[in-house]
Amino acid sequence: MINVGIIGATGYAGEELIDILLRHPGVRIASISAKIDKPQKISDIFPKFEGRINLICEEPQVQKIAASCDAVFLALPHTVSMGFVPKLLKLGKKVIDLSADYRLKDTRIYEKFYNAKHQDKLHLAQSIYGLPELYRAKIKNARLIANPGCYPTVSILALAPLVACSSICLDSIIIDAKSGVTGAGRKIAEGFLFSEVDEDFKAYKVNAHQHSPEINQELSKLAGKKISVTFVPHLLPLDRGILATIYVRKIIPPKRDPAKCGKNEKIKNLINLYKKFYKKEPFVRIRDEGDFPRIKDVARTNFCDIGIKDSSESIIIVAAIDNLLKGAAGQAVQNMNIMYKFPEYTALL
Amino acid sequence: MINVGIIGATGYAGEELIDILLRHPGVRIASISAKIDKPQKISDIFPKFEGRINLICEEPQVQKIAASCDAVFLALPHTVSMGFVPKLLKLGKKVIDLSADYRLKDTRIYEKFYNAKHQDKLHLAQSIYGLPELYRAKIKNARLIANPGCYPTVSILALAPLVACSSICLDSIIIDAKSGVTGAGRKIAEGFLFSEVDEDFKAYKVNAHQHSPEINQELSKLAGKKISVTFVPHLLPLDRGILATIYVRKIIPPKRDPAKCGKNEKIKNLINLYKKFYKKEPFVRIRDEGDFPRIKDVARTNFCDIGIKDSSESIIIVAAIDNLLKGAAGQAVQNMNIMYKFPEYTALL
Amino acid sequence: MINVGIIGATGYAGEELIDILLRHPGVRIASISAKIDKPQKISDIFPKFEGRINLICEEPQVQKIAASCDAVFLALPHTVSMGFVPKLLKLGKKVIDLSADYRLKDTRIYEKFYNAKHQDKLHLAQSIYGLPELYRAKIKNARLIANPGCYPTVSILALAPLVACSSICLDSIIIDAKSGVTGAGRKIAEGFLFSEVDEDFKAYKVNAHQHSPEINQELSKLAGKKISVTFVPHLLPLDRGILATIYVRKIIPPKRDPAKCGKNEKIKNLINLYKKFYKKEPFVRIRDEGDFPRIKDVARTNFCDIGIKDSSESIIIVAAIDNLLKGAAGQAVQNMNIMYKFPEYTALL
Amino acid sequence: MINVGIIGATGYAGEELIDILLRHPGVRIASISAKIDKPQKISDIFPKFEGRINLICEEPQVQKIAASCDAVFLALPHTVSMGFVPKLLKLGKKVIDLSADYRLKDTRIYEKFYNAKHQDKLHLAQSIYGLPELYRAKIKNARLIANPGCYPTVSILALAPLVACSSICLDSIIIDAKSGVTGAGRKIAEGFLFSEVDEDFKAYKVNAHQHSPEINQELSKLAGKKISVTFVPHLLPLDRGILATIYVRKIIPPKRDPAKCGKNEKIKNLINLYKKFYKKEPFVRIRDEGDFPRIKDVARTNFCDIGIKDSSESIIIVAAIDNLLKGAAGQAVQNMNIMYKFPEYTALL
Repeated sequence: MINVGIIGATGYAGEELIDILLRHPGVRIASISAKIDKPQKISDIFPKFEGRINLICEEPQVQKIAASCDAVFLALPHTVSMGFVPKLLKLGKKVIDLSADYRLKDTRIYEKFYNAKHQDKLHLAQSIYGLPELYRAKIKNARLIANPGCYPTVSILALAPLVACSSICLDSIIIDAKSGVTGAGRKIAEGFLFSEVDEDFKAYKVNAHQHSPEINQELSKLAGKKISVTFVPHLLPLDRGILATIYVRKIIPPKRDPAKCGKNEKIKNLINLYKKFYKKEPFVRIRDEGDFPRIKDVARTNFCDIGIKDSSESIIIVAAIDNLLKGAAGQAVQNMNIMYKFPEYTALL
Repeated sequence: MINVGIIGATGYAGEELIDILLRHPGVRIASISAKIDKPQKISDIFPKFEGRINLICEEPQVQKIAASCDAVFLALPHTVSMGFVPKLLKLGKKVIDLSADYRLKDTRIYEKFYNAKHQDKLHLAQSIYGLPELYRAKIKNARLIANPGCYPTVSILALAPLVACSSICLDSIIIDAKSGVTGAGRKIAEGFLFSEVDEDFKAYKVNAHQHSPEINQELSKLAGKKISVTFVPHLLPLDRGILATIYVRKIIPPKRDPAKCGKNEKIKNLINLYKKFYKKEPFVRIRDEGDFPRIKDVARTNFCDIGIKDSSESIIIVAAIDNLLKGAAGQAVQNMNIMYKFPEYTALL
Repeated sequence: MINVGIIGATGYAGEELIDILLRHPGVRIASISAKIDKPQKISDIFPKFEGRINLICEEPQVQKIAASCDAVFLALPHTVSMGFVPKLLKLGKKVIDLSADYRLKDTRIYEKFYNAKHQDKLHLAQSIYGLPELYRAKIKNARLIANPGCYPTVSILALAPLVACSSICLDSIIIDAKSGVTGAGRKIAEGFLFSEVDEDFKAYKVNAHQHSPEINQELSKLAGKKISVTFVPHLLPLDRGILATIYVRKIIPPKRDPAKCGKNEKIKNLINLYKKFYKKEPFVRIRDEGDFPRIKDVARTNFCDIGIKDSSESIIIVAAIDNLLKGAAGQAVQNMNIMYKFPEYTALL
Repeated sequence: MINVGIIGATGYAGEELIDILLRHPGVRIASISAKIDKPQKISDIFPKFEGRINLICEEPQVQKIAASCDAVFLALPHTVSMGFVPKLLKLGKKVIDLSADYRLKDTRIYEKFYNAKHQDKLHLAQSIYGLPELYRAKIKNARLIANPGCYPTVSILALAPLVACSSICLDSIIIDAKSGVTGAGRKIAEGFLFSEVDEDFKAYKVNAHQHSPEINQELSKLAGKKISVTFVPHLLPLDRGILATIYVRKIIPPKRDPAKCGKNEKIKNLINLYKKFYKKEPFVRIRDEGDFPRIKDVARTNFCDIGIKDSSESIIIVAAIDNLLKGAAGQAVQNMNIMYKFPEYTALL
């Protein structure tokens, strides 16, 4: 049994963390904290937890949290996390950070997209990008997990087999992504009022979203060369879920061989390539030909579902996740399961 | 052609007023103002008006507004209206106030429900409650209209024939009302965020809503005795529309005769009573037996639709309006049409 | 480990049963069937189950189902269930029937409301109404559970303490209920199309719904006298959840003493009465004064949340459940847990 | 005053046609018909029209319709229209057909995408594609209008200035389109049930939609060479509105000169190109730099709003319309206004 703390428990991701961890047989939630006016029962803040948990949510106090917890989840806004991480690590705690603070290895890019100076380059260098499908081995022994963003999770999983193994035009990847409203966090702003979002749909931060560099960083690493995607996010009038439609052009003849994928044979079939790439993954499901995921298939699950259409000159990939689970809290618990050697799907099915 | 001004143009009701008045052949919108950081084209605030109107929205300046307008609509929060009304009236302008400031004749009740001292008892005494179905004659010559609230409009219209003419138990009227989110105005608060309202439904201000005394005032006047309804509003996960389900108990034998309704005959059929009561009304529609309105029937219209179920001991009335039209901006224009002798339905069909 | 079958697995309640039972550590789903054109993997019908279950859904064959199962859930339309129940019982299986076929003890009422002759009066006489809060002792040894309807579950739980123990006017109970769309089952009809329901709200079957007699039967039993409620259901533009607002008049002085409630003291406080009545219940939560449940508090849970407003002459009760869980599949599993001596909350938290 | 008929009045587009035409000062609706079990007042089918129109909707009888109408709108399913068109034209009526039957000049393509033999090649050759922005001159004297599809309307308007005048890579246009549910018509099928669409989002007919060849036909005509777009439509959980995000690659140096656009100068600024191209259009609005349309800006209007992002190697265009108005009934009335010399915006603002 491990004891965990959640800092930032009143946001959407924090709320999900509580919900998942209450069902985890190997975990005890020992501490709940958030920016809050005065201490309050978490079940008064979220009446749905009444009868399931009896903790008080209070302002985070690092010493007190560290005293009761083995591991700490940070479900905090960007730039706030890096105020807590060094202290928690120093006290020997393992940290899973759901913010963007430890994801971008290049602090100039971080500073450009998040409008803030990075305060903790030391630990940034040590952080592990918590995408189990790519970094499981490193996650096992990590002290600090940079839990991936929601758009990057679905985008990278949708493109990884192709970028790593196949022959596509790496300079013209287009990611047209659509997210439910919780993707923005519990933000009290006019743009997120019910009557603004309901019956509406729009693009935002057109090719200027802070998740672009995160996607680029990881795809470039996979490809072994610099990749810069076109990324346009949209706001869906629904609560949770992301669906990304991705367009890539083929280069003929293939520039790279598919050896990295495990077999040195010609890849005839993209769907098979994907199935092979994710064969042992508990949370990635590849659709058969002509079948594409919808948000309902993955909402309130930790799955990433992927469908592929391969035509003569281009490839269309449709991928979906729940932004709060595989895109945030679910993936965070998946990382914790790996770190603490629980079966990876524990509390996530 | 009359010139009108709209103060409070950036709220939901103000936005609707612009939309309606742009289609009104006898009206020119001469002035648009609101609490606003700096002057801005109204079509920049609401891109849907681009190409239809070319006015700047600025902070309201009474002298300037009065100089260009014959009549002024106030789509302002409660307590703010009464700061403008005396000045506009003094300058000889006609005023249609969509706030609650001039509706409740008893200022003690106003002060209890709106938590503010009433500042303009003089004009409160002269204001006409702008429900055309009850006060058309007075509206014709009014200088100051207190445009009814959304819940009171639907509740009073649904009950007026019964309270005025029939034999019901006046001490046990129950109004179970359900409203779309725009009923609360463009309020930036956590409770109105998309992810709070979406897929949710709740009662609020249970038997404590500020529209109760407004309903009571008008029904009491109609009944000739004090009526105090039970009123429970609920928040629907939709943009616009109110549906009220109203329960009244019968008293047997009837206490009062139906003479007031124009015919001294026994009322055999409640539906006929309603049809007779509203015979000449352009915006009230009574359903035939077994047929009840839904919000879609009245959304984006100025109609109030009413269905009635008459059983042995009780009566169930279902009534619906669009809260922003018959419940606010539409009714305001209906009042203006009456005041300026336009056909009553102008710009409202 | 018990083996269970689900007949009617492709409806909303069947889908939920699969989801819950897959998380149940003491249960193996051994058989899945439904009215279906040709056998199909259940994970092809519901891609969200891909990787979690590998069964084929086929037309139900009683012998085959009985051979592999200890207990069978029937998630079938009304009138279809009673074709299966006698056969399954004869083969020694325990049956939890989610349809209305075994709920109404008076077959004349059944036949009036469901437009069909009752075919199995023998087992109807033996069926146990599966509301654990009232019939737990009988459920333990039941062979046939008539799982309650969604509206009756929330209505009876909201009224039981009052009807059993307190002094209300039993002839004027009004239940104004609002349900999400899944309450109607997966019915392919114009009225349930997205564009009909979205942004709409309406009353239906005004005081003529087939759940009225079920509520009346159970409340009458509790009260020891005939009760006939006024019941008006409404359709909410949301997927799942029911909220009922209930109005009862007080009779003064009290007619009945509260002895049944365990203490022969004067009931000063209704909220305490409710808390006492449901003290040991794992799935009923009573709110403190001034606090009322919303659908979000209970959606995707098996809880029934209840808030009470006690005023001088009347009582207002607001109660909420998830229609597919406490109102159908969740309660069915709760009943199974009781029958098979699993902790009652297993797989339900 | 002209007399018009509507065949197919009970679908979404038919319903909108009634609504628009009731506000048209130069039009009298003389006939309303649809596939219907028995004649019924149109206001019984759509209670929102009660008090506004008093016609009976019956099965369409060509002779009777022709006797009372000058022009006829066909809001019929594909393949049904071509059964009516020859008869109506023979009787001297002008016809505006909202189906796809007269849009695709190549009947082999029609037959492939609509799975039906074309029955009326004679009139197909004469039909005018009713996109006023491209074909206004021809529409003026047309007898048969093929009213454009919703996706083609928004896609063609979004791309026309670029394809006609600028230097883009014509073989790699990607249209990622998202439509509200009414885009599919009032279709009673499981996929359009509220609980299927609500909180969901999906791609469908991935690069295989019947609107692709319509887009290709018109863009190819504009470009003077064969264009084949990549087109992926998606289903939004909302009632009405389409937003398309379009990606085009630049070719450097430009292949074609911009002379067609009226000025033989170098195009420095794409937004200016668009503004010039649509300068006189009453229903196309081009956004300034950094500003993009959302569905709310155009819902329930006849406008098409377009925003453009011009980066070094590619161009991103975001365009939005209301699928039932500019994408169907609104555009049909716009065409009628042109044909009958009404101001083009009559009844459409």
